[in-house]
Amino acid sequence: MKAARFIGRKDIQILQIPEPELRPGAVAIDVAWCGICGTDLHEYLEGPIFIPPKGHPHPLSHEEQPVTIGHEMSGTVTALGDGVSDLTVGEAVVVEPYFVCGECAQCQAGRYNLCVKMGFIGLCGGGGGLSEKIVVDRRWVHPVGNIPLDQAALIEPLSVGHHAYKRSGAKAGQTALVGGAGPIGLLLAAVLKAEGLTVIVSELSEARKAKALSTGVADYVLDPSKDDVVARVGEITNGLGADVCFECSSVNAVLDQLFAAVKPGGVIVIVSIWSKPATIDVQALVLKEIDLRGTIAYANDHPAAIKLVQDGKVRLAPFITGKIALDELVDKGFDTLINHNETAVKILVHP
Amino acid sequence: MKAARFIGRKDIQILQIPEPELRPGAVAIDVAWCGICGTDLHEYLEGPIFIPPKGHPHPLSHEEQPVTIGHEMSGTVTALGDGVSDLTVGEAVVVEPYFVCGECAQCQAGRYNLCVKMGFIGLCGGGGGLSEKIVVDRRWVHPVGNIPLDQAALIEPLSVGHHAYKRSGAKAGQTALVGGAGPIGLLLAAVLKAEGLTVIVSELSEARKAKALSTGVADYVLDPSKDDVVARVGEITNGLGADVCFECSSVNAVLDQLFAAVKPGGVIVIVSIWSKPATIDVQALVLKEIDLRGTIAYANDHPAAIKLVQDGKVRLAPFITGKIALDELVDKGFDTLINHNETAVKILVHP
Repeated sequence: MKAARFIGRKDIQILQIPEPELRPGAVAIDVAWCGICGTDLHEYLEGPIFIPPKGHPHPLSHEEQPVTIGHEMSGTVTALGDGVSDLTVGEAVVVEPYFVCGECAQCQAGRYNLCVKMGFIGLCGGGGGLSEKIVVDRRWVHPVGNIPLDQAALIEPLSVGHHAYKRSGAKAGQTALVGGAGPIGLLLAAVLKAEGLTVIVSELSEARKAKALSTGVADYVLDPSKDDVVARVGEITNGLGADVCFECSSVNAVLDQLFAAVKPGGVIVIVSIWSKPATIDVQALVLKEIDLRGTIAYANDHPAAIKLVQDGKVRLAPFITGKIALDELVDKGFDTLINHNETAVKILVHP
Repeated sequence: MKAARFIGRKDIQILQIPEPELRPGAVAIDVAWCGICGTDLHEYLEGPIFIPPKGHPHPLSHEEQPVTIGHEMSGTVTALGDGVSDLTVGEAVVVEPYFVCGECAQCQAGRYNLCVKMGFIGLCGGGGGLSEKIVVDRRWVHPVGNIPLDQAALIEPLSVGHHAYKRSGAKAGQTALVGGAGPIGLLLAAVLKAEGLTVIVSELSEARKAKALSTGVADYVLDPSKDDVVARVGEITNGLGADVCFECSSVNAVLDQLFAAVKPGGVIVIVSIWSKPATIDVQALVLKEIDLRGTIAYANDHPAAIKLVQDGKVRLAPFITGKIALDELVDKGFDTLINHNETAVKILVHP
């Protein structure tokens, strides 16, 4: 079968590899669609980062580069391994792409995204969504019912947004400020809106501002180059400040604005991955008793994310801005996202 | 009566001023003891900071400098204003030294330490503990029963420690790492120990390390100049990391160690006041899902702090390292704390 393989930095090739074998407790899936994630771009441009380099196999997958990539996948069940009886062949599913040990304190506490050996399928081995077929342990396969398979490929980044929402402790009726409207910022805003919050998005890019408005995920869209974001948040919240803020840009100036715009006793969640340290206003953290919380990936979020879409509370179709074939992955996928990343939200690949 | 008055930076004078008048709903107190706080030193050396400067009266006290200072006070009730019937003349009390508006969202939510107009008695007006007498609204007067009045003067900083403990969400049986064993770090450690945690204190100063051990508030005392703090915390916690960490030093290198030593999913509370921004390891915050929380002063903590002392779970006497008269405030009080701050923990003033 065909698969996109990470050979090395700036060297991803579509190669013929053997089909994966079904094993007990696992599910064989024909991949329908796989989204390209910012993480994939980072691996392509600067990797290996999450991908285990040669000589350093992942402790759970025991694989090292080259590996098959792609972790935002949807597909159809084609076969069930021994012991799997609660899915049916032909059923539409998505994959929660994890390796976890199941034994460490975090796994035991249900926070398996913090597993000491945590790795991602599609980065650390185990095949990937940018290939025709994959075999995944039953635990990580979630049925999606009647959600169209192209939209279902966005359940994975939507689950990232749902986990950030859960980490914030936000409640219906509160006001959220989202700093940065890239794919994760937009999908997080969609979750917040669906959960009954007033959503303010702060974003520089015209295309992303337009998307935040046209998709209806933002009640207010502010431009920090034109608007006084802190003053506007104050107006919108009757002088109280935002209940919860989300940093989705990896930009320190954005984080600074969140510290100023959050209410006393409020919460700021950092959702983005930073490649350098951040400078924070400790005085504000202390005097306003701010909670600054990290969030990574998801844990027990997929069912809730799927339900938001099934219930019509989140519409995923508007976030799909491109569909390409596997052979076009680098030319039309990565290059578009790297060079025109403001207009593209989510590009799906059909293997 | 005599009172210590903040005239200006490095100008605190013991002056004769009129006695305060009793008013309805308030309590007249003869001050027994008043501790000198780090905040008082900051005002003396660099103020006015919290003290309202000339021309900028505090919105609730309507006072500006010169003001009477001192906010860590104990004393004896001498008279009760109209409407106060639940205290008795002669009763031993401490003061929770607040001005709050009672109307803002934070006051309404019970987080009155975050009141938009919050000020401190003894800094922002309303008299202070470094004077013979004070009149305080009933709400802020807490009976201390049979706690000796000298020890009772430490209820205020103990309440700061109790609030930091509450902010952390720490539970009995967990392990806490306290970075810095100044007065607040030591009293916080005392609360943590009393609440059933294993307490690790990290501190450079020999005198403070000795105090952390001799008072029994620390199970382990580490010296970051000699010990690999992160490795030692790992050994003590069976490789898990500290459940909760407390930054009590205003030193970035200490905060960095807490980020490395805290467990995945753990909590770091910043207790100290920083005069500059901090640099933080965002990657660790995100990948370990750390909660970084600010804490300021106290809210509804005094009763619990008093009970810890009454129940014998916290012993305050060992933290009293000096007792002086009001006339000695600057010479023997401030100068000792500024020039020999490692051996002195809490100096009490008897007005």
